[in-house]
Amino acid sequence: MKTYGGYLIDLDGTMYRGTERIEDASRFVHYLAEKNIPYLFVTNNSSQPPELVAKKLNEFDILATEDRVFTTSQATANFIAQKKANASVYMIGEEGLKQALQSSGLQLVDENPDFVVTGIDRELSYEKLAKACIAVRNGAAFISTNADIAIPTERGLLPGNGALTSVVSVSTNTKPIFIGKPEKIIVEQAIQVLGMDQDKVIMVGDNYDTDIKAGMNCGLDTLLVHTGVTTKVHLERYEQKPTYSVDSLTDYLNLLHS
Amino acid sequence: MKTYGGYLIDLDGTMYRGTERIEDASRFVHYLAEKNIPYLFVTNNSSQPPELVAKKLNEFDILATEDRVFTTSQATANFIAQKKANASVYMIGEEGLKQALQSSGLQLVDENPDFVVTGIDRELSYEKLAKACIAVRNGAAFISTNADIAIPTERGLLPGNGALTSVVSVSTNTKPIFIGKPEKIIVEQAIQVLGMDQDKVIMVGDNYDTDIKAGMNCGLDTLLVHTGVTTKVHLERYEQKPTYSVDSLTDYLNLLHS
Repeated sequence: MKTYGGYLIDLDGTMYRGTERIEDASRFVHYLAEKNIPYLFVTNNSSQPPELVAKKLNEFDILATEDRVFTTSQATANFIAQKKANASVYMIGEEGLKQALQSSGLQLVDENPDFVVTGIDRELSYEKLAKACIAVRNGAAFISTNADIAIPTERGLLPGNGALTSVVSVSTNTKPIFIGKPEKIIVEQAIQVLGMDQDKVIMVGDNYDTDIKAGMNCGLDTLLVHTGVTTKVHLERYEQKPTYSVDSLTDYLNLLHS
Repeated sequence: MKTYGGYLIDLDGTMYRGTERIEDASRFVHYLAEKNIPYLFVTNNSSQPPELVAKKLNEFDILATEDRVFTTSQATANFIAQKKANASVYMIGEEGLKQALQSSGLQLVDENPDFVVTGIDRELSYEKLAKACIAVRNGAAFISTNADIAIPTERGLLPGNGALTSVVSVSTNTKPIFIGKPEKIIVEQAIQVLGMDQDKVIMVGDNYDTDIKAGMNCGLDTLLVHTGVTTKVHLERYEQKPTYSVDSLTDYLNLLHS
């Protein structure tokens, strides 16, 4: 069985399930840490800064530090800063996006921005959407952290950033550039953070449409774990299969050692 | 030239332009009133109750009373009440929609509604969208007052209800039933309010994609006036022309008398 030099790992559904621990995930990451195999958590959740994501992972007994977390907010900030250093940005989003943009030297403004960025925002208002629409109509480049249409919560599936983004795209008739999985942008950056050739890297996740497609889009091997969104039955519908699919990450460790 | 027994008349762009009076519109409506020709203002704006719409029209020197105004909120409320009397409704919207739903005997609820209705709401919040998504996923019928993607204001084009509605439709993967122009639903009801056969009724408006299409969809004759959205140049793009197109409603009166 092929061994990998680095792992890109999804969070919700892969490392934990909402507020529920996944024992096999904890065991898997401990294994990587023991073997000194580099890994990076790659998340479409733009709301929290890396240190809070790492803290949450630690509470689920997953070994994680801030520098092992790569969020779509960071990827978005990098993407914009590469297009235009010190660009002005009008942002809809939460603390994780705000911090990422500011850390990349971008200027948060209310009017006449170079870029409009939309991320999940539980304090969304009509006024925020209005400002975004005006700016996009005035020519600002339109970026969205991710296209996820729903967020799983204890209350059910709530609107995800892809759904919120649609207000601006429908109203202005302008499609945004999406940064998060399944897009290549976030994964290409994550591979750079790992500092490794892509043929040594594998993408691990529970969601075929985001995690696995993101890996495939970048030519990575992929590992689908059936602890979240994509069940075995769902997987049958897809023609292109992941490199591996397992019921749990313990099963993957067993495969590695067989 | 054919004369009509009743007129369905659009508001913004036809009777006034934002906060600006249209002299020819005032003259046109005075003519209808003098001749005792029935007319009804038909608007996709769900935010205001009919008496406030009439008041605004009076300020522009347009003869209007509450019972000459028919809003998409009224059409929406009628539509739901016909589907299910006393139905429970979770609403996103403003005062005009709220009053219309309550006047039709519908019950406004926060959870487990029979129907979810979205109308323009300048107090929109993530929580309101979340409740709508949960209800639609739980099987509530999904209705939207209108599909307009933008609202013209002094600040520019702000998000319209069609754009706000897309959050729920994208997140739940469920298309709403739209009530307003260019849909037939609002116009068929408006014809009933006029109490007249459709071949005696003409639809008047400035917007080909909403007003004129709505009229055509119901088999009405149509009058496009170039005082708003659809210019002469725009009109060239459309294969199916309105019955009449004029630069101003005074020009239409002159046609009538020629």
